[in-house]
This record gives sequence, structure tokens and C-alpha cells, in this order.
Amino acid sequence: MSHSISPLASPFPDMPPIAGVRLAVARAGYKAWDRTDLTYAALEEGTTVAGVTTRSRCPSPEVEWCRAALTLGQARALVVNAGNSNAFTGDRGRAAVEAIAARVAGHVGCRPSDVFVSSTGVIGVPLPIDKAEAGIDAVMQAPAADWLDATQTIGTTDTFAKGASTTAIVDGRTVTLVGIIKGSGMIAPDMATMLGFLFTDAAVEAPLLQRMLDAANAPTFSCITVDGDTSTSDTVLAFATGKAGNAPLASFDDAGADAFQAALTDLCRQLAQLVVRDGEGASKFITVTVAGAESDGSAHRIAMSIANSPLVKTAIAGEDANWGRIVMAVGKAGEPAERDKLSIRFGGVQVARDGLAVDGYDEAPVAAHLKGQAVEVDVDLGLSEGRATVWTCDLTHGYISINADYRS
Amino acid sequence: MSHSISPLASPFPDMPPIAGVRLAVARAGYKAWDRTDLTYAALEEGTTVAGVTTRSRCPSPEVEWCRAALTLGQARALVVNAGNSNAFTGDRGRAAVEAIAARVAGHVGCRPSDVFVSSTGVIGVPLPIDKAEAGIDAVMQAPAADWLDATQTIGTTDTFAKGASTTAIVDGRTVTLVGIIKGSGMIAPDMATMLGFLFTDAAVEAPLLQRMLDAANAPTFSCITVDGDTSTSDTVLAFATGKAGNAPLASFDDAGADAFQAALTDLCRQLAQLVVRDGEGASKFITVTVAGAESDGSAHRIAMSIANSPLVKTAIAGEDANWGRIVMAVGKAGEPAERDKLSIRFGGVQVARDGLAVDGYDEAPVAAHLKGQAVEVDVDLGLSEGRATVWTCDLTHGYISINADYRS
Repeated sequence: MSHSISPLASPFPDMPPIAGVRLAVARAGYKAWDRTDLTYAALEEGTTVAGVTTRSRCPSPEVEWCRAALTLGQARALVVNAGNSNAFTGDRGRAAVEAIAARVAGHVGCRPSDVFVSSTGVIGVPLPIDKAEAGIDAVMQAPAADWLDATQTIGTTDTFAKGASTTAIVDGRTVTLVGIIKGSGMIAPDMATMLGFLFTDAAVEAPLLQRMLDAANAPTFSCITVDGDTSTSDTVLAFATGKAGNAPLASFDDAGADAFQAALTDLCRQLAQLVVRDGEGASKFITVTVAGAESDGSAHRIAMSIANSPLVKTAIAGEDANWGRIVMAVGKAGEPAERDKLSIRFGGVQVARDGLAVDGYDEAPVAAHLKGQAVEVDVDLGLSEGRATVWTCDLTHGYISINADYRS
Repeated sequence: MSHSISPLASPFPDMPPIAGVRLAVARAGYKAWDRTDLTYAALEEGTTVAGVTTRSRCPSPEVEWCRAALTLGQARALVVNAGNSNAFTGDRGRAAVEAIAARVAGHVGCRPSDVFVSSTGVIGVPLPIDKAEAGIDAVMQAPAADWLDATQTIGTTDTFAKGASTTAIVDGRTVTLVGIIKGSGMIAPDMATMLGFLFTDAAVEAPLLQRMLDAANAPTFSCITVDGDTSTSDTVLAFATGKAGNAPLASFDDAGADAFQAALTDLCRQLAQLVVRDGEGASKFITVTVAGAESDGSAHRIAMSIANSPLVKTAIAGEDANWGRIVMAVGKAGEPAERDKLSIRFGGVQVARDGLAVDGYDEAPVAAHLKGQAVEVDVDLGLSEGRATVWTCDLTHGYISINADYRS
């Protein structure tokens, strides 16, 4: 966490422990830094797991390992390495993941496939197996860590620790959901994201947990972008220990399933927005809503075209109500749009309607809105009922500074 | 031309006059600036015309006007307004274009549809008809201008004047081709681009000229990107006066058609690369070549994914051989790719092969290559024969500075 704290940072919340989850951190020394960089979560027997991973065609071996392990739906441990993503490292990368899983399985007395592994950091350098194994041996002896420790330990270019929690009533019992997440650049998840880890004491069977996580992912992690660049390592895993004692949820029709789904989606939305708030160089949190599109999918693609446009993002960084760039981004999206039906609002103030500037439009209230940290852009295409909301941040000198010398 | 000159600038070449073309410039005063901003080209009777325009769904009325006029294939005049794109201005924008064409037609004694109009600058402000008409009246009295005058007058955020010329032998006669172009941001043409104007004294029938321009556009203007943002006004027009006296080219099978096509494509490539060299904030000219793809189209999409990646572009700005970001950009393109067959070269030096870093790979020669102004990135997917080359520039603080306060 080397860069100055994001001006959009949120304080780390008080988060309750989750029965059946024990956390610990250690120093594997993956980089020449003086911090913990190996996070471990021990999960009690009976924990189910679901996950969503990057759609990159060049995924890391950790992503491939998790995908295979997810088919079994059982988890006993999570290991997260920070400082080295182990992506694009061929056989040596795969060997490192297998060694980690085997080492943990030996300590725990479980199958290697019960061990989930994620890594984040530089691409192209095989994760050193000796450091990983020594780190695992150390973390087994380490005292219990709290959520803040774990969240700080999974971070890389993150400037603040990002976590959230919520509750739901299932089968008459209060279940708790906690999530931690890291990520601030190479963020355009498109069906998965960054590294995010969700824990709940609810009992949820693995196939349903997977369907619920897919449903929660679509309107949350898949609706954020920092720079349009999709990581090779994006992974979100959800672990359910079942210690709350509810009758296990197995179907969307079960009592409490709706409440749990709502809580899970809410948790994912909080975490996704925190990632945007830590977007590299971000000074504004931008909400882009597109309505009146031919379909929700079309609205989403147009909203993403706006949210990824460097000209829109630099205009907002400059607090410039340059709505012409919104028109440009709508036009280039390749989706149905009719220039002369298009309306645009900044902060709720209509600046363009039916394809031209609003008569007598006064920039002052819009300029005032743009000076704030939360910027709202609303586009109405006037075609049909399709609708989508996405979140992004502005593009500033900070992004250039961070990324022109990150690896060095 | 308010910003400091691009470090990648090329000197404006000596360019010969084209028989049948007379240039002039005037001060319409579209903005509060002390420069010429209206360019006029008189074209002798018999001039044929072809054009390619933006695929934006929100095109400017100028683009719509040119598309309609192109169906007739005849041109007598070109008017280019700088400082105001007249895009997204509804009926008032259309009225301005019609007024300009009518005014010129009155002076020349031609049909309004023989008058081609382009405008570039801020979006959303109707072009003032009174200023346009006064400018046209003035330009009719103005002395002849040269290519440099005209090129400077069509520019907006351009930091240097961009032109190129070439020749071909057709029907035993040397024909000359000249082109001028403007553009440095909002550049991702995808089938058309910026404002570019090509003039030749060759005789080419309009339908063939259109097919030749389409063919020349695909591997040139459609293969450049500065920021991935596609303009509402992108237009390239080609005018053929026929004054060279060759038997008019009517078919690709005609003698000299191949030579003319090659010269036209060469001209377009020179102009396209000049736009990249004036990319906003550019400090490096980057050539991205993708080979071994499933198809040429797939190679092009992967090359564009690399060329548009902010993380790739900032790494190159920082002279950092961060090839992991190339892997990321290949992976996110959504095209067929196999991580373990992927090879990457910087400046011809292989840094990754078969999905991992080359053993004993030394960064020194690559770092030296990255310190230069011309950076070459070659990716081989190892799948099939598909191939594409695109050109872009790096992403620097200059881009942020230019675009966070352009309109103000």
C-alpha cells in the first residue's frame, strides 16, 4: 500500500468473526518488502464454496486450480499470495500452486482439492515454491488475525483496506456475511473480478451457492471498471461454513433464500464499489446510468462505453461538464441509439434533450455537481425499456504516475 | 495548435499542387482565436469523389450531408470549418450545413450536392450560420493558399501540420496524390477517421474511387488508435480532378489501377501514421503486430486490445518492458488464444515463448529499445496464419493535461 490513500477511501468497518473461519497472516517475502504477504483462512469441515473467475483467455494457474476445485464444492482452506500473480509462468506456475495445496493439505489433513489458492501481483515471474512453503509452515503457527489484517495482507497497489459485512434472516436464524477484496487497477471484471473473498456462517449447498454468486456478480462486480483492463487472475470465492445452524439452503424456493440472495448481492455491491473508490488515481466516484435502451444488455454496453472512455473520464477529472464526450461514447458503442432522441443529465440536471443542448442551459449547477466527489451521469436513449447502472472513476495524472512505474 | 509540438512530429513535406484544385483560407471566427479557421478547396468540373465516414451512431450533420452527396459522386467544392464540430446540434446543425452548401453553390454556380462540408471542434454548439456565410464570402476573395496553409487551418488540438504526397504511373502518365489530415485525440476510427482530404489529378470514375478508398482505408485509418474514442465527425474524402489526362480508371482490371491503388494506400498509411505521431500527449510511436491468429480479423481485434490498453500504454510511457500487461491485453480480447503457445517480442527481442518468460531473458536490450521513440511489439499466438498490424502511441501525463481542460 505504497501510494497515498485514495481521496475516495472509506474507513474499514467493524466486521464480526464468522464461525468456522480462522484467519492468519505471515511473511513469505514474495517481494523485497517489510509486510505480511501470505493470508490463510482455515475453514471447518462441511464448508461449501462457490466462485467466479476471469474470462481472460490467459488465466493464471491459480484460476485454473480454483475452477477445477470448485466442481467439488468443498473447501477447508484458502491461501492468498500477494506480490506475485504467478500468471503466465507455464509449468513452474502450475507446480507452485500444486505444492501450496499439497503443503496445506498435509497440515490440515484434507484433500489438496479442498485448498483454494489465489495470487496477485506482477505477471510472468514463477511464484517461488520455497518461500510459499516456508510461509505456509509459518502461518500454521501464527496467532489468529482479524479481518483488517487479512485485508491488508491481500492488498498490492490498494491504498486502503476494503471490506463489508451484512446479515440476513434464514430459517429463523440470523446469518452473517463478510467480504474482503483487493484491487485498484487492471479492473474491468466482466463476469468476475480482482480477488474477493466472501465468508458466511449460513448453511448453503454448493450448487445453490454457485447460482447465487453468479446472480450477485452480474449487477455488481460485472458493472465496475477502472481502466477497462481485465486481469489474468480475477477471482471471487464465497465460503459458507454452515455454523449458523440453519437448515441448509438448497434451492431458490427455500424459505430465506431470497433474503440470503439479497444480502449476498448487497455485499458484492459494497465490495465492488469499494474497488472503484480505490481506482488508481481516482478523485471522483462516477455512477453511469443508461435508460431507454433496446435491452438491458444494450444499456450495459453503452454504459460501459461511457465508463471506459478516456475522454469522458478526463473531462470529469477536470470537472468539465463536457457532455459532447458522452454523446461520442454513446455513438461509438455500436448499440442501437438515435442521436435525436438522446437526453443527458449530470447530477440530475438535464443538459441535452432530443439530440441537442437544452435551451438556456446553465452550466453553473452542473459545474457545482462536478466539483463534488460523487458524479452522476444519466443517459436516456428514448428507445425502449432497457436499463443499466455501472460505476467507475475518473482518469487523472495519478493513474499515469502509478502505472508508468509500478513494476520498477 | 495551442499545445507544445509533439516530440514525434514530422516536418511538413514539400507537396506539389494538384491541377484542378485551388485552395484558400479565411477567418470565420468560430472561436475567440486569432487564426484562419475556414478552409476552401475549389474543384474543377468533372472532379469525382469518394468518402468514408464514422460508424458512430451519433454522427454530425456534416457526416450525414457528405454521405448523401457521395451517392452522386461529383464534387465542385470542399469547405472545412475548425473550432466547432456542429455535432449533436439537431435541426440548427443541419440548417447550418445546408446554408453553407447553398452559399457556395451560389458563388460557384453548381448544385449544393456538389459541395462537401466538414467541421471539427467542440460538440453540441450549433455552427453560427452568419459567421459561416461571411467566411465563405471572404474566402471567395482570398488569394490562393498552399497545402501548409490549408492543413494548419483545418487543425484544432493538432500540434503539427500533417500532409503527405505520392505518385503513380497510370496510362503512361504520372499522376500525383496529395493528402492532408487533422486529428490527435478522439481517435479510434474503425473504418473511417478524423478529417482527411485526399486530392489527385488522376481520372478515376467515382464508383471505382470509392472501392479503392474503402480498400485503402482498411489497413490504414482503421488500424490506428490514440485513445479508443471514436469521433462523431470522422470523415475522409478523396477528390480526383482528372487533369492528369489519363484514360479514366473505371475498374480494378484497368491498366494502372493496381499502381494507383498502391499509391492511394501508401498515402493513407502515411497520413494515418502522422495522426498517431500527433496523438495527444504521445512520446512513443508504437507498432503492434499480431501473427499466428485464427484469422486476420481476430489478429486485428487482439492488436487493438493491446493498442488500447491503458496499462500497456502507460508501461511503454514509463519505458517498462512489462510484457505481463501484453498477456493481459491478449487475454481480455475475447479472441481465440492459448496462453501456453503465446510468444512476445519487444524490438525483435523475444521475451516470452510458449507461455512463459524466456530462460535467462535479459531486460537490458529491451529496455534500450523502449528508450527510443519507435517501439515495436510483436505477438505470435501460434495458432494459425491470421496477421494484423496497428499503430498507436503511449499514454502520458500530457493526455490527461490536454483533456482535463480542453474545452475550458
